Amino acid sequence: MTQARRRHDPAAKGFASDNYAGVHPEILQAIVLANEGHQIAYGDDVYTEALQEVFRAHLGPAAQVWPVFNGTAANVVGLRAMCASWEAVICAESAHIHTDEGGAPEVTGGLKLLTVPAPGGKLTPELIDRQAWGFGDPHRAQPKVVSISNATELGTVYTPQEIKAVCDHAHQLGLLVHLDGARVTNAAAALDVPLRALTTDAGVDVLSFGGTKAGLLYGEAVVVLNPEAARGVEYIRKTAMQLSSKMRFVSAQFEALLAGDLWLRNARRANAMAARLAAAVRDIPGVEVPRPVEANAVFAVLPKDVTVRLQKRFRFYTWDESTGEVRWMCAFDTTEADVDAFAAAIAEEMR
Amino acid sequence: MTQARRRHDPAAKGFASDNYAGVHPEILQAIVLANEGHQIAYGDDVYTEALQEVFRAHLGPAAQVWPVFNGTAANVVGLRAMCASWEAVICAESAHIHTDEGGAPEVTGGLKLLTVPAPGGKLTPELIDRQAWGFGDPHRAQPKVVSISNATELGTVYTPQEIKAVCDHAHQLGLLVHLDGARVTNAAAALDVPLRALTTDAGVDVLSFGGTKAGLLYGEAVVVLNPEAARGVEYIRKTAMQLSSKMRFVSAQFEALLAGDLWLRNARRANAMAARLAAAVRDIPGVEVPRPVEANAVFAVLPKDVTVRLQKRFRFYTWDESTGEVRWMCAFDTTEADVDAFAAAIAEEMR
Amino acid sequence: MTQARRRHDPAAKGFASDNYAGVHPEILQAIVLANEGHQIAYGDDVYTEALQEVFRAHLGPAAQVWPVFNGTAANVVGLRAMCASWEAVICAESAHIHTDEGGAPEVTGGLKLLTVPAPGGKLTPELIDRQAWGFGDPHRAQPKVVSISNATELGTVYTPQEIKAVCDHAHQLGLLVHLDGARVTNAAAALDVPLRALTTDAGVDVLSFGGTKAGLLYGEAVVVLNPEAARGVEYIRKTAMQLSSKMRFVSAQFEALLAGDLWLRNARRANAMAARLAAAVRDIPGVEVPRPVEANAVFAVLPKDVTVRLQKRFRFYTWDESTGEVRWMCAFDTTEADVDAFAAAIAEEMR
Amino acid sequence: MTQARRRHDPAAKGFASDNYAGVHPEILQAIVLANEGHQIAYGDDVYTEALQEVFRAHLGPAAQVWPVFNGTAANVVGLRAMCASWEAVICAESAHIHTDEGGAPEVTGGLKLLTVPAPGGKLTPELIDRQAWGFGDPHRAQPKVVSISNATELGTVYTPQEIKAVCDHAHQLGLLVHLDGARVTNAAAALDVPLRALTTDAGVDVLSFGGTKAGLLYGEAVVVLNPEAARGVEYIRKTAMQLSSKMRFVSAQFEALLAGDLWLRNARRANAMAARLAAAVRDIPGVEVPRPVEANAVFAVLPKDVTVRLQKRFRFYTWDESTGEVRWMCAFDTTEADVDAFAAAIAEEMR
Repeated sequence: MTQARRRHDPAAKGFASDNYAGVHPEILQAIVLANEGHQIAYGDDVYTEALQEVFRAHLGPAAQVWPVFNGTAANVVGLRAMCASWEAVICAESAHIHTDEGGAPEVTGGLKLLTVPAPGGKLTPELIDRQAWGFGDPHRAQPKVVSISNATELGTVYTPQEIKAVCDHAHQLGLLVHLDGARVTNAAAALDVPLRALTTDAGVDVLSFGGTKAGLLYGEAVVVLNPEAARGVEYIRKTAMQLSSKMRFVSAQFEALLAGDLWLRNARRANAMAARLAAAVRDIPGVEVPRPVEANAVFAVLPKDVTVRLQKRFRFYTWDESTGEVRWMCAFDTTEADVDAFAAAIAEEMR
Repeated sequence: MTQARRRHDPAAKGFASDNYAGVHPEILQAIVLANEGHQIAYGDDVYTEALQEVFRAHLGPAAQVWPVFNGTAANVVGLRAMCASWEAVICAESAHIHTDEGGAPEVTGGLKLLTVPAPGGKLTPELIDRQAWGFGDPHRAQPKVVSISNATELGTVYTPQEIKAVCDHAHQLGLLVHLDGARVTNAAAALDVPLRALTTDAGVDVLSFGGTKAGLLYGEAVVVLNPEAARGVEYIRKTAMQLSSKMRFVSAQFEALLAGDLWLRNARRANAMAARLAAAVRDIPGVEVPRPVEANAVFAVLPKDVTVRLQKRFRFYTWDESTGEVRWMCAFDTTEADVDAFAAAIAEEMR
Repeated sequence: MTQARRRHDPAAKGFASDNYAGVHPEILQAIVLANEGHQIAYGDDVYTEALQEVFRAHLGPAAQVWPVFNGTAANVVGLRAMCASWEAVICAESAHIHTDEGGAPEVTGGLKLLTVPAPGGKLTPELIDRQAWGFGDPHRAQPKVVSISNATELGTVYTPQEIKAVCDHAHQLGLLVHLDGARVTNAAAALDVPLRALTTDAGVDVLSFGGTKAGLLYGEAVVVLNPEAARGVEYIRKTAMQLSSKMRFVSAQFEALLAGDLWLRNARRANAMAARLAAAVRDIPGVEVPRPVEANAVFAVLPKDVTVRLQKRFRFYTWDESTGEVRWMCAFDTTEADVDAFAAAIAEEMR
Repeated sequence: MTQARRRHDPAAKGFASDNYAGVHPEILQAIVLANEGHQIAYGDDVYTEALQEVFRAHLGPAAQVWPVFNGTAANVVGLRAMCASWEAVICAESAHIHTDEGGAPEVTGGLKLLTVPAPGGKLTPELIDRQAWGFGDPHRAQPKVVSISNATELGTVYTPQEIKAVCDHAHQLGLLVHLDGARVTNAAAALDVPLRALTTDAGVDVLSFGGTKAGLLYGEAVVVLNPEAARGVEYIRKTAMQLSSKMRFVSAQFEALLAGDLWLRNARRANAMAARLAAAVRDIPGVEVPRPVEANAVFAVLPKDVTVRLQKRFRFYTWDESTGEVRWMCAFDTTEADVDAFAAAIAEEMR
């Protein structure tokens, strides 16, 4: 047993983020199975070849999949392939690309983000119009892409109709649509619709498909649904330092996630646990659940001293210092017992 | 068994690249062991904490380690942290950063490379002087870093004395030294010296430590040996889209590689197989081995028709179309039987 | 007479922008006077040497001046010299760097802008706090600079006290302050204070000093007031493609503007004409002047059909399509007759 | 008289660079003539409109001209408009974009340069082939543009036939051709051919047209000869901070240069003075003129102590410290008396 393993408490689980979880055992098994002999590096392996078919079965025959290492990269590589150097991205002020990627879109991608305050984290045609102007004026970074997230950073879920409305409006304006799908499996599971209902069928052009939060060890994918919408993904992925040499293992993981229903089982579990948690705390006096719980996130407003005490027992983040709002995320490995223990602790600390 | 697994011939091995190999079983075991419960994401986990100690045991108490996803990223993040936006990197014309990274240093890093033709892929003080000039002149990208690779792209190995000569000269000129160590374990094993003899003790400032070719599933590391030499690695790693959420697994792999002697066993094996291959083919009439075989690469000149026939049986790359030179890489999983079968095939095709 | 000159109506003047004006005759005379013999290129000439003294006389002995070609460049070069690659700039949502530079700060500078809705275009300590957080968190682009404009895009003027409050607050937070002074001479003239009252004495670290709108043919300057606040301006200017070869002529123009009181005469004229215009139209029934007229801009709300008819007679821009707000700028060459003719036309069209 | 003017010795002329010269009087006159009333800013003025016709008269009806501030910018904006982010530029090792622009192409443009040692500074089909390979391989920055300079940095001149050979070969390979024409007027004058013989008619796709060294105050132009070859110049110019507000003055200068024969007179003068200088020094014992004198540059090898003494009397640069080679540039304002005085001084110092 290593030094590090000794310090690792395997029983500890929390509600800080769905990427605090480890790897789903079926994913790990897929890695083990792929680990024999040699495979051509950098994506010319049989696993990556097969992955194209897996994604096409879900997202239609035009889909092209380009595995990358992480979600920030999937977003930046995809957006970069959609935009010329002078083109810009319209997104919600709460979008992950704007708030949580350390400025990677601007610093590394050279992409200007045109943000809009969006209630519930969701863009609408009306909100898009607030930034979709100035076409042809070199003094204004040219709007080119509308980027939405599903599920959103605020735990809400766009319906297929809502996404279609965004896409139709964007396309009428000559804009393309990017979907940050770090939690797209949670969104599909929440609505009980196939993945393509929220993507291809709704008119999305390019998708960041999330693997890590869905149970992978590592790996996300840029999925081009409209081949006219993206250019040079292969080269951009390389210059963005996202071309994995032993790519067979990223692809084998995704195949394990998507060839059967593992993606759905994992997402349903995470969503169900969030619903269970919300139900358990909603009636505790003094706890407010101010946002709809639609996927695997629960937002709650607690007294700050309760938050402090509770964070000593379970990991989670404060979302808004000024209001005392906190965020609790459920993962594919969150159990009913985990939720019940946490809810009990909340009740206890609130007393 | 998945679609992809069915297409995967586990017996197939070749000599194309050390990253065609899979994962060493002890590394895979470390991943499995780390896969329980929750760990803080993005590097605040116990494995990454322990990794600092592991690297310091090898490289001295000042070493700081920053895991990233791949080798191109380790190089670009490290160099970016060493250079202001207007500063440039002196390297051999054959350096991986110049020839094999798709332009990532320039395109993503905004780094100008000042290249020098370097026999055997190795820089010397004299060769450095060919680009180390123009200090203070804004018309010239300001030389700031000398980047060397060990083992080199040409399969040669710098000795500690050679690296020290480079570092001393660079430091006298006010330059820093970066070492691309994608195969630094092979270099250390080849010379039978500790890792620090080729790095910290020789005066290297920042190191890209290679994991993938040494047997990891994925993962490389930026290792800052001289804390004065690099600034903002933490932030640059994030904006370079190289901050892994489930970082515990990168760190656990590196711990498995470096806490014991796995790194040395793997490197010795790969080097020994290259030596065995060179010995086996050197005397085949018509085969020339034009470069010293010092690590895990063998370069050979073959008749082109032989190369064509041989590549149908074993994967490997032509290095120089004009001369018929080919490159054969051995990996940590190359066996004596693999080498002997390949050597026999070469002999057979040459007849 | 050239083709172009024949098409040029020298009598035509409008209220579209202060950069529709030409060059002040005294500036042109300075160019002519500097045009003999040879001078060292790229800034090692006697005019650029003298310019340092001219700026120091205005802005204090620590000031360093770096001429560039235009205002976008002055802003991006200055900000780039203040920020490491991962650092960000807090500014008003209406800031020129955010709205009117085609995305140059992000696309070319790799700078993330953290914007705040700012009434009247002016930041305050309270507004700065809305973005000044997340220090040390690599997921957030690190706030480093507060950038303000004086006069603002909305024609308002910060007082020395207001700037000092911004600077004191920023410095307490470890932030630096950049002032976009494309119209800093108008601001100083409006308040009847010396230039240093709005810059050096108020605590500004780096200044973009506007020349073009003040009457130059071309030329702006990055002025570093706090030498600790900027790094590598010389090199950044070159890589930003802003190093003029015949720099003597930029410097000679600035000397002509600033060695005497030309800057003040020009700014006072432009401001006075805006005041005259505002006074003339304020009482026309149906015309609203919704913002304070503090420098050389007048904003007005007109019926849209009036705007359309009026724009056929005089050039000016609509500021906000939705409200019918238009913007009228006065320049150093705007005359009382120009204003009176325009005001009469407005009155006429409103009838 | 200003401070600076007093320090300015109008009689001083040297041989350091053609941009040490001032402005040709006819150019200055054009500025004065354009300086009345208002003109629309940012290029929508009558001078810039007329400029299109002027350039088309020289370079054919497809030419599109985009004025910028300086030569580095013309090169980077043009190349950026020709290349996707992952595409690279083949050029001579001695090219200005590689040696003298402070790394602007890489740092600001994100462009990788693939350099070739080129005798006399001139590329040929054979030399291009040394870098024109690796198409479709994401590990190699994709060659897209061949950039040549005429006249070259070494004072040599490509003939129309030589340029055509480069262009034909490049086009066959799917590459585009960029010509850095900082001294293209000198080249055309040297060969006594029209400008289009060296550009449009030879197959050049995009041209950087040099104004400053040809006698302008400031101003260069990106000229797109093949509209298929460049994309987004208008937007790239803005984000590259090269959109001049008072553009009428850049355009008026170019019109003055090109509408008549001023460009030719200026270039002929400079070339003739270089020829005169070469003739005068070639026979001085101990002075070697190692390169052909084809345009306005003379290279000479002198004893180093002579160079030191001579540089106290006339400004010029040492080209190669190791060989003692120096460079003497003649400008549009170099007179026979200037040359004769300089040649006499050389003879004197050599005695």
